[in-house]
Formats: sequence, structure tokens, C-alpha cells
Amino acid sequence: MIHDSKGTVYMIPIPIAEGELQSLSHEVTTYTGQITHYFVENIRTARRFIRSLHATLVIDSLHFSEIDKHTGPDIPLLRKWLKEGHAIGIMSEAGCPGIADPGAELVSIAQGMGANVVPLVGPNSLILALMASGLNGQSFCFAGYIPVKDPQRMKRIKELEAISQRDNQTQLFIETPYRNDHLLADLVKHCSGKTRLCIAQNITAPGGYVKTKTITEWSKAIPAMGKVPAVFLLLG
Amino acid sequence: MIHDSKGTVYMIPIPIAEGELQSLSHEVTTYTGQITHYFVENIRTARRFIRSLHATLVIDSLHFSEIDKHTGPDIPLLRKWLKEGHAIGIMSEAGCPGIADPGAELVSIAQGMGANVVPLVGPNSLILALMASGLNGQSFCFAGYIPVKDPQRMKRIKELEAISQRDNQTQLFIETPYRNDHLLADLVKHCSGKTRLCIAQNITAPGGYVKTKTITEWSKAIPAMGKVPAVFLLLG
Repeated sequence: MIHDSKGTVYMIPIPIAEGELQSLSHEVTTYTGQITHYFVENIRTARRFIRSLHATLVIDSLHFSEIDKHTGPDIPLLRKWLKEGHAIGIMSEAGCPGIADPGAELVSIAQGMGANVVPLVGPNSLILALMASGLNGQSFCFAGYIPVKDPQRMKRIKELEAISQRDNQTQLFIETPYRNDHLLADLVKHCSGKTRLCIAQNITAPGGYVKTKTITEWSKAIPAMGKVPAVFLLLG
Repeated sequence: MIHDSKGTVYMIPIPIAEGELQSLSHEVTTYTGQITHYFVENIRTARRFIRSLHATLVIDSLHFSEIDKHTGPDIPLLRKWLKEGHAIGIMSEAGCPGIADPGAELVSIAQGMGANVVPLVGPNSLILALMASGLNGQSFCFAGYIPVKDPQRMKRIKELEAISQRDNQTQLFIETPYRNDHLLADLVKHCSGKTRLCIAQNITAPGGYVKTKTITEWSKAIPAMGKVPAVFLLLG
């Protein structure tokens, strides 16, 4: 075994819906009061978030490294901080870090160095949607984004529906928000009337909702989703 | 659209590791101070949990319906409570309800009645393990339990490894705790040396850990897992 680290990495969730501190766990407040070194997607929002939890903390004494959108995280700095034995926080722009963001690369390095990695509890739109969907939570799959163009798009939708039917496995996927309405129209067009579709939108925010209906039911009154982040769940 | 309900269902997480209230979100405390009607897996633990959050609440004034292990939840009672417009909480024995427990059946009925279903934030061992694994969080699949006996067991392990390789998709699965050590031995035996395996055990509890290594690395020092709940994550 490799033990090249004395430091610990903490995976720190932040709210999905801005300012919804109620959706955070108590341990996030505890740890952000103690952690001194951070890798974050955006320093300004990270500082503002920590400030919202700790009114009197001296934020200028903390160390921040911003994960560059193009070149990725500063890996040598992570190695240095871990060897020095620091408590290191990783934060993304929304929700749980490491699920679908550059944080995973840092974790992979930290794991390779034998560092402890501690995940803290917070909001994740996929799990929240699944909990409230009533669909199968004993077997599920997150498929990421749906292809933008036909015929790949149609093919992928039919494929996910077929897998969900064959394995009784809930299929979760997402879409770039401005294409939500387009995706919903395509799902109604291509899926069987009996297939159940759950839409979770603006979850944890006021006005957020999680609704499960059959494709036939959705087709009778297709809602205008707009450009608000959504999770789609399908079970044929 | 069907609107046969004025009530709201709240999906209420409880700690995975007993007594670890730090892992709960603030909103769980808020809502359990207001909800009057509950469906729970075990009334005694539910009462104790609510008491731990609200020292002065009169618990005898709350209504509990226990989900029967054999006959399932009392669906007519759920319909009645929803029509009467109550705030209804659903709690499982550990973690987030509705993911792999009888709560999902209640949610499915509530969704069918057009009720609001609100998921609250709390600990989920799958997401926590994935966050800290450093494995791919952009595409992942929860496969539930692995078959107990060969040749189905070996076949399923090799199948999950092949899917993870083909689709760069993290495969998550669980095992009955007393078979953890057996499963780890079989994974080391059947998977390629380069495949990465993450073990998350006793997550959110003191002494809990999430470790990712290659099969070759694990094989050099196979840990004794014992009968403690674990999540396995694999990426070939």
C-alpha cells in the first residue's frame, strides 16, 4: 500500500439552489469552520458560501486554488498540501463535488497517494429526484447527457427505454437547460404510452417539483419547462 | 392531470450510522418539527429519532403507520391522509427513504394521486461513496446485489467489469454484510489487475473509510472487512 500523505480531503457539498442553506448537513458547517485549504471551481462564490455559514471567520487567512476550466486542477499543489498534512476541502459550483465535475480528478490523485477522503452529506439532484419519483431505487443508472441530434438522439432514447424495461432499471439523464422542452417533446414522441417519466426540476428551491406520470398522461398537458435545471427519470 | 390530493409527502432521511445527527440536513430538523403523520419501517426507532431532534415535542400526538415487512404499507391509509390534506413523512431504517426500501411503493401511489412529494437532503451511502471514490461520476450504475452462487456470481462480476470498461461507467453494488469478505476475495480473483475497485465501509461513522485501489494493489493486502455495511465500486 502507498501511504504518501498525512492530509485529508473533504468533499464539501454546497446548495443546488442558491442560498438554500437549509439543504446542507450540519457537518458541512462544522468542517468549513476548520478547513484551511480549498480547491474550488470559483473562488468568489466559495468565499461567499463560507462567509454565509461563518459570519466571523477570517476568510483572508484561507488558501484557495481555483480549478482552471481549461487546464484542470493544480495537481502538484494538491500533492504538496497533502504531504504537508493539511485539511483540504473540495467544492464545486453546486451540489456534491466529485459526481460530475473536475473535483473527481483531484480525488483520484488523493486516493492514489493513500490520503483519507471524507465525503460530507449534502444535496444531490439525482438522489433527491430518485427518492421522490416512486420509480425503482434498487436498480438505477445515470446516463449523463442525451445526444443532441437525430438519429443518435432518438436511438438513445429508445435504447434507454428498452434497457429500463428489460432490467426494471430506472434510467436517469440530464439535458442542457435550454433544451429541456425539446427533450420532453422527444420523450413524449418516442416512448411508449405506458412508460413512466419523472421530471424533477429546480429541486430544493421554492417552486421546485418532482412529478411522475406515464407518457400518455404527460402528452395530455406538456408543461413548459423553461431553462431551469432538470433531471429526467424513465422506467418502461 | 389527476389532482386527487391536497396533502404532501416528505421523504425524510435518517442517519446511516446510528446517532450521527451531524450527517442530517437542517431541513430534516425543521420538517420533523412540523409533520404530524408518518409511515415508518419501525415505530420505536422513528419515535426515538424524532425525540433526538426535538426534546420537547409531544410525540404521542403524532400518527404513525408501520410498514409491514410481509404485507407492505397501508395504502388505503395513505390515500385517506393525502385526501385529508396532511403533511406525511416517510422514513426508512437508515439513510434516504425510497431508494431501496418499501417507501417507494407509497411514493408511487402518492405520485399517482397528484400529491406533492418533497425529498429532503440526507446521507446516501451510494452517492457519498461515489463522491470520495475518484471514479467516474458522469456515468454510473447501481446494480444492487451480486448473485450468491457460482457460476452466476462469477459471470455477473465479469459482466459488470466489462460494462464498466466498455462504457467508462462506474458500477456500484452491495453485498449482505456477512458476505463482504467473500465478495472482496471473488472480485480480486476474477477482475483484471488494472481494474480500479473502491470500497466504502461504515460511511459517516467514526472509523468509516472510502478507499480506491487497483485490483493488483488490493491483492497485496486484502483487508478484513467483517460484517459492516459496505458499498463496492468498480471501474475497469
